[in-house]
Amino acid sequence: MTRRASVHRIAAAAPDDVSGIEAAIADGRIDPAGIVAIFGKTEGNGCVNDFARGFATQSLGLMLQRHMSAAEAHAVCLVMSGGTEGGMSPHWTVFERRGTDEAPPGAGPHGGALAIGRTRTPVLPFGDLGRVAEVDMVADGVRAAMADAGITDPADVHFVQIKCPLLTLQRIGEAEAKGETVVTRDTLKSMGLSRAASALGVAVALGEIGRDQISDDKIAANWSLWSGRASCSSGIELLDHEIVVLGTSPAWAGPLVIDHAVMADGIDVEPVRAALRRLGFAADGQLSPAERGRLVALLSKAEASHDGKIRGHRHTMLDDSDISATRHARAFVCGALAGLVGHAEIYVSGGAEHQGPDGGGPVAVIATRPG
Amino acid sequence: MTRRASVHRIAAAAPDDVSGIEAAIADGRIDPAGIVAIFGKTEGNGCVNDFARGFATQSLGLMLQRHMSAAEAHAVCLVMSGGTEGGMSPHWTVFERRGTDEAPPGAGPHGGALAIGRTRTPVLPFGDLGRVAEVDMVADGVRAAMADAGITDPADVHFVQIKCPLLTLQRIGEAEAKGETVVTRDTLKSMGLSRAASALGVAVALGEIGRDQISDDKIAANWSLWSGRASCSSGIELLDHEIVVLGTSPAWAGPLVIDHAVMADGIDVEPVRAALRRLGFAADGQLSPAERGRLVALLSKAEASHDGKIRGHRHTMLDDSDISATRHARAFVCGALAGLVGHAEIYVSGGAEHQGPDGGGPVAVIATRPG
Amino acid sequence: MTRRASVHRIAAAAPDDVSGIEAAIADGRIDPAGIVAIFGKTEGNGCVNDFARGFATQSLGLMLQRHMSAAEAHAVCLVMSGGTEGGMSPHWTVFERRGTDEAPPGAGPHGGALAIGRTRTPVLPFGDLGRVAEVDMVADGVRAAMADAGITDPADVHFVQIKCPLLTLQRIGEAEAKGETVVTRDTLKSMGLSRAASALGVAVALGEIGRDQISDDKIAANWSLWSGRASCSSGIELLDHEIVVLGTSPAWAGPLVIDHAVMADGIDVEPVRAALRRLGFAADGQLSPAERGRLVALLSKAEASHDGKIRGHRHTMLDDSDISATRHARAFVCGALAGLVGHAEIYVSGGAEHQGPDGGGPVAVIATRPG
Amino acid sequence: MTRRASVHRIAAAAPDDVSGIEAAIADGRIDPAGIVAIFGKTEGNGCVNDFARGFATQSLGLMLQRHMSAAEAHAVCLVMSGGTEGGMSPHWTVFERRGTDEAPPGAGPHGGALAIGRTRTPVLPFGDLGRVAEVDMVADGVRAAMADAGITDPADVHFVQIKCPLLTLQRIGEAEAKGETVVTRDTLKSMGLSRAASALGVAVALGEIGRDQISDDKIAANWSLWSGRASCSSGIELLDHEIVVLGTSPAWAGPLVIDHAVMADGIDVEPVRAALRRLGFAADGQLSPAERGRLVALLSKAEASHDGKIRGHRHTMLDDSDISATRHARAFVCGALAGLVGHAEIYVSGGAEHQGPDGGGPVAVIATRPG
Repeated sequence: MTRRASVHRIAAAAPDDVSGIEAAIADGRIDPAGIVAIFGKTEGNGCVNDFARGFATQSLGLMLQRHMSAAEAHAVCLVMSGGTEGGMSPHWTVFERRGTDEAPPGAGPHGGALAIGRTRTPVLPFGDLGRVAEVDMVADGVRAAMADAGITDPADVHFVQIKCPLLTLQRIGEAEAKGETVVTRDTLKSMGLSRAASALGVAVALGEIGRDQISDDKIAANWSLWSGRASCSSGIELLDHEIVVLGTSPAWAGPLVIDHAVMADGIDVEPVRAALRRLGFAADGQLSPAERGRLVALLSKAEASHDGKIRGHRHTMLDDSDISATRHARAFVCGALAGLVGHAEIYVSGGAEHQGPDGGGPVAVIATRPG
Repeated sequence: MTRRASVHRIAAAAPDDVSGIEAAIADGRIDPAGIVAIFGKTEGNGCVNDFARGFATQSLGLMLQRHMSAAEAHAVCLVMSGGTEGGMSPHWTVFERRGTDEAPPGAGPHGGALAIGRTRTPVLPFGDLGRVAEVDMVADGVRAAMADAGITDPADVHFVQIKCPLLTLQRIGEAEAKGETVVTRDTLKSMGLSRAASALGVAVALGEIGRDQISDDKIAANWSLWSGRASCSSGIELLDHEIVVLGTSPAWAGPLVIDHAVMADGIDVEPVRAALRRLGFAADGQLSPAERGRLVALLSKAEASHDGKIRGHRHTMLDDSDISATRHARAFVCGALAGLVGHAEIYVSGGAEHQGPDGGGPVAVIATRPG
Repeated sequence: MTRRASVHRIAAAAPDDVSGIEAAIADGRIDPAGIVAIFGKTEGNGCVNDFARGFATQSLGLMLQRHMSAAEAHAVCLVMSGGTEGGMSPHWTVFERRGTDEAPPGAGPHGGALAIGRTRTPVLPFGDLGRVAEVDMVADGVRAAMADAGITDPADVHFVQIKCPLLTLQRIGEAEAKGETVVTRDTLKSMGLSRAASALGVAVALGEIGRDQISDDKIAANWSLWSGRASCSSGIELLDHEIVVLGTSPAWAGPLVIDHAVMADGIDVEPVRAALRRLGFAADGQLSPAERGRLVALLSKAEASHDGKIRGHRHTMLDDSDISATRHARAFVCGALAGLVGHAEIYVSGGAEHQGPDGGGPVAVIATRPG
Repeated sequence: MTRRASVHRIAAAAPDDVSGIEAAIADGRIDPAGIVAIFGKTEGNGCVNDFARGFATQSLGLMLQRHMSAAEAHAVCLVMSGGTEGGMSPHWTVFERRGTDEAPPGAGPHGGALAIGRTRTPVLPFGDLGRVAEVDMVADGVRAAMADAGITDPADVHFVQIKCPLLTLQRIGEAEAKGETVVTRDTLKSMGLSRAASALGVAVALGEIGRDQISDDKIAANWSLWSGRASCSSGIELLDHEIVVLGTSPAWAGPLVIDHAVMADGIDVEPVRAALRRLGFAADGQLSPAERGRLVALLSKAEASHDGKIRGHRHTMLDDSDISATRHARAFVCGALAGLVGHAEIYVSGGAEHQGPDGGGPVAVIATRPG
């Protein structure tokens, strides 16, 4: 049977406000059985002590269990990205897929439809975290998720969202008890290393970087290596990797199309404009209110460039001891993207190791097919 | 003799880094005798305990006194706007004017040249702060600064920068000892009230609001009253108002032109694009590197909308107890504007009471005349 | 039957870490049926966007429902105080009461035992919030909770914890639709006003302030009016008031005793030392490790003095735009109290309107009976 | 001729408020010619972008130059410690020494008087920062400062204040251009590494640690190595080290005495109480108002323990991405010390790498000789 993907962008009044999703289920817009993943932009600080993410995850889990078994609820990939700085608006993006009788769209400039695949990798040995073994595990996972989506050509993949594990003091102890050495004993750093290895795994799977270019010492170190389609976040609640692949497939039906762009820095909106135009938007200046209605989701990564500059001008994000650089970067990049698309209910996530070039990041655009 | 305005945008490595200005004086790009005003984007928090502003002011004063008498140095209007959130780049904007033998530009689409006027008002009685008496005093001052610039038509004024006084506990005591009542005993609120009354003074002088529409109870209360060209900041170091008027005059020579726009909200960049186009920029998408070179200065105000929304989507700026809303707003609006003009060495100032509509703000563009 | 109170101080590894309570239930230290209240020190910012409190509340609710009906779980008073600044250690304090065959302790210097009473008031009309009507409602509630504890003499009450409602935009709308006027349209201010009125309600019930001294204009304004035993926090999740009274009663059995002190400012630890001595602690210098074991709970309020001074020296808490004054105050007062008692797993709560003198606050000490 | 030390504690209303020092000079309490050092507790964040320190330094320099030559002013050691969290009160501590005809005090329990020595080291090559070369340079400097104070026995040294350099991106560039490798490219970390190496230099000079115990990999890593008398802060404004030694000498006259203590953790006030008692204070409980007058200065270090615990209870300082751990620690330790001495105009400085045991720190007490 043909499959069809739906994406629902739903405002959240608080990290535990799942009422909008409940309402969409109640009135039939969402069939809970088809929910594959929920991405949340939640209003914490997006850093270590951001409990809004956990609160949102707990609240979504309770909501899902009102509609499915605990095991089914657990299978839904919940990716909470903390931090709605600047005018960014807290919201959920619900990814759903179901069978359909519709015919897939024919060939043409906007042929193919949004396809969604997902998988979970095996459990990652703690000693492998942040190392090439994690790169390889994630690359295998991305291939599996592509297969789940029915996508064979990596060029048809436009965004890969990964949720990857991190080290805790307890996990480090377990690894060391087995004689393994961990890549770092700094648990915060382990988050970045896991994201970094995961992003490189995406790059390998999509053919953006040759596997032979990657060695342990390049991970979270050589920023010239990056994927233009990876978006990774690390979480304490899992030991494996959850992988969601978003791409285009002629075998899927439905009104949704997707494309992506890579921002070279935090204000590099022209590649995003080009992606919008490939999806049929005029995108002269800011999206008009009419065009804005076609934009279903904008997913992006943001970070402060490590050289402390944007196009030669000094920025102060890395020197601000009152506000984390990731918070600055999200507010700023959200402003740049919102200036382009005309609203700020967009998903800008921080911590972009190997996810786009240093200071820039990948952006995915999901839209309804043009009239 | 014909006058000519120059505007120098100079990077600052720290609040006390005046080396770039010194270098420009040393090599003759700036004649210190002609310096009328220096606006600084300094990297503090832009709020109550932002000492970077005072540090910058002290450093600039010491620098000026190396080139002129203390009285002359004191006459230079120093406006320090704290907060370089997001990618905003700390910098000075030096406004200079001098006599010239050049002929003023003829008429035409970009006829007239940037004209700069300034004045200081009388000392403001503390009991008048934040009240219509301050509105009237500022309105008179704006008219005097217009006269100083040789501008007669308010339509030729594109930006008015005001530095206004605030209340301290000591000043409140002095006022009360004279039997005056002050508008507030909250010194932080007095900053906003002084900015608010000053902005309304600009609006009255420029004919944007009728004087009869303003009464004490409207000040910092009725946000439907606003100027599209006022930019006000309050400072502890003065008891009067410093006023700088930037406009267009056919009597001035030189390569600089100015226009302005009003953003209706924090992402409303299209009016700014229109202003750029009126100044001869193509501004299709982001400014090209070539066009970017013509952009001399971008001056704007930013604030979080009081209704907690941007185009219907909730923002969280007013609810964040970790980061001041003004810091969020500057980062976000800077992102939107930088996405348009292609760099972030721009002047985005917070605290926009009656300066543009609620959540939006005035923007001035200074550029060199097109080819 | 004689009643007996137990108080369990249990560390929390995160806002949703209820494992310590679960373990205590599993091994019989806590009988869930007897749980009256749980106070939580949770590690958010303690201000508007502190979602750790809600996360803790949801997690505790889920935990309780594993051991009792939803209605019974709902009846447990959950007071989450956000903010574990400085070295303050996140933890739960579980208040339990049950019947016992033990005889109450006889008279003597440490006669009587800890008694716990609780009640809920009627729903507060939104127009009454922050006004004398709320004072009266809370005073009645305190009397009811005293009766529930079997305490008749207000002098036997040592601490009253109140959880009170706040205004939201929706509630303001409902009130105004009925023709009521609310005390403020600023939802953040409504939190302080509700705490303020509740604290004065405690003071009236305990005879600390005459009812005739209180009028609407004194609430959150005249800081010379205060209770030495009130601790109030406002929460969005209730429309009435939850009231827990902690005191001494000769009719209760068990090893716990309680006393209280009032700190005149944030470093006024000597009254707390005196209270410790009344409970049989030597308290020469810091509590010795041996004595520390007898200290079951230390509950206190903290705030920055409104005059900006501590014993004549300027503090900067109210001028810091990066860190909320309440966060400064909790860290500081926790340091002072921890220096006295020798550990920092103590409950210091911010927002002390009319709860102790300006800049100071009430402190309750719960301990096991000496020797 | 006999020397005599004076120490003046003077409130500051802002980082540039030197009026209190000016007044003391004007009325003869301070002879500017004798000023050796000024320690400032200034109200910034105490971290990377704390410009209040530079503002204070510039303001003090201008003040000094009104009373002495620029070279003499430059020789005064200005140590600005940013961050007055909690109730800590911004103030200056002016150290002055001059010749006197007074006889030094005789032997006895409080024999000897406060002696002050100072020196500056050579300029530190950027590649040496945070390495044993910096340890050695500082150790030599401490010995030179001891000689300047006329102190020969390291046991007579009670506090060594060091101001050390840090790395900036520009300095890293200069070092790398010369083929040097720097210890870190993270400028914030360079502050801690420089403090760490400086503290170990003190420990070596005072014989607290054998030189052979120190290697590059121990610096900022092996927290079991520490000095009980070092207090180090890093600043952007110098390339060498300024060193001030405070100790006791029978050759100095005057009423001041000094002693020191080491806190084992942030609430370990009993060793400070013992030091107070050695200086003749009763110190039963909090210092009485009468005794408080004898306390001239309290200088201490504070930091969050790296194991995340205080006496077994978890603290959250290291996990708070909104407030730097150093800010938490200063507020907390200031509370503990202020609870002991009865006021908060004390000098608590953050960043205590190798300055006292992990989580604790050295404390110096300067007082007038008892009765």
